[in-house]
Parts: sequence; structure tokens; C-alpha cells
Amino acid sequence: MSTVPRTILFDGPDPLHLSGGGTLAPVEVAYATYGELAPGRDNAVFIAHALTGDAEAAQWWPTMVGPGRPVDTDRFFVVCANLLGGCRGTTGPSSTDPATGRAWGLDFPLISVADLVTVHRRLLAHLGIERLHAAVGGSLGGMQVLQWAADAPGQIERAVLVAASARLSTQNIALSNIARQAILRDPDFRGGRYPDHGIVPVNGLSVARMLGHVTYVSEPGLEAKFGRSRRDGSTPGFGIDFEIESYLDHQASTFVDRFDALSYLYLSRLLDYFDPFADDAFAAAIRDTRFQLISFDSDWRFGTSHSVLIEKELRRAGVDVERHEIASTWGHDSFLLDPPGYLDLVEGFLNDRTGVVHD
Amino acid sequence: MSTVPRTILFDGPDPLHLSGGGTLAPVEVAYATYGELAPGRDNAVFIAHALTGDAEAAQWWPTMVGPGRPVDTDRFFVVCANLLGGCRGTTGPSSTDPATGRAWGLDFPLISVADLVTVHRRLLAHLGIERLHAAVGGSLGGMQVLQWAADAPGQIERAVLVAASARLSTQNIALSNIARQAILRDPDFRGGRYPDHGIVPVNGLSVARMLGHVTYVSEPGLEAKFGRSRRDGSTPGFGIDFEIESYLDHQASTFVDRFDALSYLYLSRLLDYFDPFADDAFAAAIRDTRFQLISFDSDWRFGTSHSVLIEKELRRAGVDVERHEIASTWGHDSFLLDPPGYLDLVEGFLNDRTGVVHD
Repeated sequence: MSTVPRTILFDGPDPLHLSGGGTLAPVEVAYATYGELAPGRDNAVFIAHALTGDAEAAQWWPTMVGPGRPVDTDRFFVVCANLLGGCRGTTGPSSTDPATGRAWGLDFPLISVADLVTVHRRLLAHLGIERLHAAVGGSLGGMQVLQWAADAPGQIERAVLVAASARLSTQNIALSNIARQAILRDPDFRGGRYPDHGIVPVNGLSVARMLGHVTYVSEPGLEAKFGRSRRDGSTPGFGIDFEIESYLDHQASTFVDRFDALSYLYLSRLLDYFDPFADDAFAAAIRDTRFQLISFDSDWRFGTSHSVLIEKELRRAGVDVERHEIASTWGHDSFLLDPPGYLDLVEGFLNDRTGVVHD
Repeated sequence: MSTVPRTILFDGPDPLHLSGGGTLAPVEVAYATYGELAPGRDNAVFIAHALTGDAEAAQWWPTMVGPGRPVDTDRFFVVCANLLGGCRGTTGPSSTDPATGRAWGLDFPLISVADLVTVHRRLLAHLGIERLHAAVGGSLGGMQVLQWAADAPGQIERAVLVAASARLSTQNIALSNIARQAILRDPDFRGGRYPDHGIVPVNGLSVARMLGHVTYVSEPGLEAKFGRSRRDGSTPGFGIDFEIESYLDHQASTFVDRFDALSYLYLSRLLDYFDPFADDAFAAAIRDTRFQLISFDSDWRFGTSHSVLIEKELRRAGVDVERHEIASTWGHDSFLLDPPGYLDLVEGFLNDRTGVVHD
């Protein structure tokens, strides 16, 4: 568990009002900050994390966040918070429901990207920050930035959305559904009551992670890295034989130690329901935010077509937007890496050096 | 269970010698025939089925097999057999091990595409057929036809491989591994002993099928058929809400009623290990067989690159081969459908009307 600061941002008399109706309290949030807030309070950058991230952005996104990086902690005051619904210090479905004294389980309310943003905004207020120099997010992180720009017009000066989506495809939903089914169907899930029993649906969560992971990497990337190599000394059969099987097994076993199955369900499900441009008022609400959209050519989860949709909708609403496609072998996970050109674009955008719009 | 004829092709004194060493007996095979064998015994066509098919080709491949279809049962004597390792009448891992009187389970030997072909060839001998006018298969079916052409040079006059592969990609193996993990990790799998307990690993097999199914259909196909439609009267949550979720759930629940988890493991695993061109002698052994290779542009399981590899290796060995890519929205499953041009190509090839080679 994270050792970053935690603060209760919503409680009984002042609960979190959820976008889908109802309230939630208490909401405690784990967050990390890097750098110093300038006297004019005009150098804050918020990092919104993806499905399984946490508050410690400089740890999981070292290419983007740190001294001399695009989100330069020598110049910017950087804030990142574990998401509502998460399991890395912020209130989520495995937290204690004060009404029962046991874990919320599936009684935790269904949450949306807008609810994540409401919590982020309250954290900013708690930190005494009114405006953001920028908000930056990859994947689900980018979706939060987009939602935020519409929910709080003008609060974000520069919005960087990397490998994000404003509308999951049918295939996206199908694959996420299968991952959730693996968890929901695991007998150790116990209808979401597993925290009461001190157990974890290890098998379901492992299968979910392995499947998710394959969608984060590209076919050519897997081919280049593993090919059809076999493990030394292994034999044909139903055990781990190919190197790719060993890799996925390792991904699964480290994941179940650090992530919670209920959080996986809640955060994965809100992706499916995110479809902000279905409401015409959404893009029209955005004011005084400039957008930078970046996608990767080998990303088959939220590839360039997803960024193109966002660009089209933003342009139609008269929003200032630039879009770039970066060549990278590493699929969706490229947003965490440094394929040529990518980090320079973000660095330029955060410093108001105009990028070239690629069509 | 099929009501087609069954015959014991290998038994104690005459066991099946497996390509990986060892023997298996008894081997009973369920097979179907259509049409009449000509007096010259020169009109036989063998249909090799894919992972989850069965002997009744005219049922599951009605576009390809039947009166007036490319594999015209008014003219050809058509043979199809349930695969070794299957569960539709042919001996497989849930059949009884004569040594113990209970199901083989994971004591069933690991089998290969070559073993499936050995059984097919014995069936042909049993039926008094020496040469095939053609052998036709989609996916794993095509892989059997390829293996057969090398194992019995000259026995197949015309080989039709549709949406086949001679070497699974890393991503193919990764996704198949995840599907198998869902089965192997289901507590009801009981280390493969579930048949003894009269139970079925329903949850694992369901997740495996849902994942497999998504790889059989294309992203644009899913988008066109389901989009983001929701079921009438459903509500957001972790139940079945999107139409695609309902569809996958239906696919899973009908599959577990007709297919066996152990057969899924064995037949899926032999795909991973199939890599015939790794042996230089393989293609060199092929004689007097003309090949037709067909792929579909939206197939992301065994797409055109897989057919291109087969074409390249066959050409290098001087084998007569034509290759075609067909435009189709329906991904890998296109081989069971009738996208424009596809069936005409097969019909032409079976009747020695030269096709146009597409590059």
C-alpha cells in the first residue's frame, strides 16, 4: 500500500454526490505531490492515472514525470491521486462501508468518469489550487482529463490525452466483459464478499489481468519480444512452456498482489459506460482549454481512430485541438514508454511551442 | 451427441502410434458421409473440421457442403470425421481409459495435427478410398489438410486451406493460453478429473469460449452487428447490459452444453505446437497436390499473413499453389459464411477452373 498522504475529502454531512444519483461518504483520497507550488499558484499539473495505476506518478510514469521530464517537477507542482473506486489508498469497493462495518463489495455505488473528476477537483480545492497549467492522462487518465475540461470550464489550461477514448468499441467492451466474467465467475469472488473472508479471487483476477495485458501490447511487439520461444528445460503440455506464457503468468501473479478485484470491476465498467459526446452539450461546455491528443499506431485497444473521434467532436465545438499519431511497436502501453517524438510533443505543448497537427 | 456412424479404427493389438511417441488405444471415430462413392473411387472429398466442429459437415458448413454447393454432395462422396481428442463421438480425453475404467483426463496423451491426420487416413482405408479428389478445411481443418499432404504424398489431389495457419503468432498463443488458463484454474476442473465427478468446469469453459469467440469475429463486424446497443430494460451494473454481453453469454452457455473442456484444452494446445515448416523436409515431401489458400481481410486470428507464410514455403518447395484474399467483414468466422467470391473460388478449384492468384 502506498505511503503517500491521505485525506478525507467527503464525509457524512458533506458527501460525494454521484453523477448517477445518490451519495457516497466517507471518501478518503491518497495523493502524491511533486515540486513546489509557485506563489502565483499557476504551475500546477494534474496527472490522472489509468485503470490500475496509483498516486505515485513519478514511480509509474518516470518518462513523463520528474526532474527534466515533460512534466518537469523542477518547474511544475505536480499532483496525482489514486482514483475513486481504486485500491491504493483511495476509497473503493473493498473499503469499509460505515453502515455495515464490512467491505462495501458490490454495494459500492456504480461510479463514472465524472465522479472520479469530482473527487480530483475537490482535492485541488483542498490544496488551494484554482487553475491547472495542465492536466495529463493516458488511457482512462485521458478520459478523466476530457471529462474535467467539460465539467469545470476553464479550470484546465492545457489538456493532454494520450491513447485515450471517448467511446469504447464493441470489441473493447467484449474483451472487458470477458475479463470481468473471469472475476465474477470465480467461486472465491463470493458475490463480492471475499474481503469479509480474507480471501482473494486469485484465479479470476489473474485471467482478467492476462487478457487485459494482451490488449495493452501489440501483436508485432509480442512477436518481437517473445516469438515462439520456449522456456529452458520446459516440455510440451499444459504447463508453462512458451516464454509468452511465462510472461503472462508473471504479470498475473504480481498483479494479484497489488490490485483488488472489486476495484478492477468498478474501474473497468466505468470505461464501458463513458460516452460523453453522446450529449451534445458536453463539448459545447468546454472553454479555454487547449487539447493535445496523441495515439500510437500499434495500439489496438484505444488506437488512432479513438483519438480521431475526440478530435472531430472537439473541433465541431470550436475547441482548440492538435492531434498526433506516433509510430511505436508497443501498442497501448506505449503511453508509458518513450517512442521517438512522443515526449517531445508533450514537452512542447506544455511549454506552448506549437506542435504540428498530423492528419 | 452425434448419431453418425462410429467405428473402432485402432485397438489393443493395433494401437495408434502417436507422433510424439507412445500409443493410444482404442480409438473410435465418429464420421459422416454424404453422396455416393463412384465406381472408380475417384470422387472422394474429405472435410477436416476446426477446433469445435464435428463429423456432420453438411450441418455446420452448409454453404460449402451439400447438393449444388462447392463440395457438391450430388457429385462427390464426402467424408468428415470428428477429430481425435474431440468429444463428438471420437475418442478424446473425456473418453474412458481402459486401463483405469475412468476418463483419461490429463492422462490422455498430448496429440498433434499429425495424429489427427493418421486417424483420418485410417478412416479412409476403412472406407476403401486410396486417393482424395480433394481435402478441404478451415482454420485447424486447413492445418490438417496441409499436414496430410506432406504425410501421405500424392493422396490428396487438391488441398483447400481456408483461414489456416502453419505457425501461430505470439498473440495467438497468448490468447489461447488465457482461454486454457480459465479452464485449468476453474476449481470444477479438478485437475482434469471432473468427468469422474459428473461435473463440468462451466465457468472456465464459458470464459474460454467467450474469448475464443471474440477472436473469431472482427472489430468492424462486432461494431456493425452490436455497436453499443443495450438490452431492453437492462440497467447499468455488472450484469448483462450491452447487447454484446448478452451475445457472448449466449455463445458461452450453448457451448458448454455441446463441448468438453478437456477436448478444448487438447485441441487448442496442438494448434500452438503446429509449426511444420520448421522442418525443411516437410514441404519437400509434398507431391502431386495442388493447393488453394484463402484468407479474409478482417480475420485477426489467422489473417492473410498466415496464408502468405504457407504460400511462401510451398512455393519454395516447388508446390503448385494459388492464394486469394477475400474481402469480408466477419473475421475468422468468414470461412463458414459466403462473402462474395469465396465459394466460387473453391468451386472453381475443385473443378479445375484456374483461379486468379491475388498478391
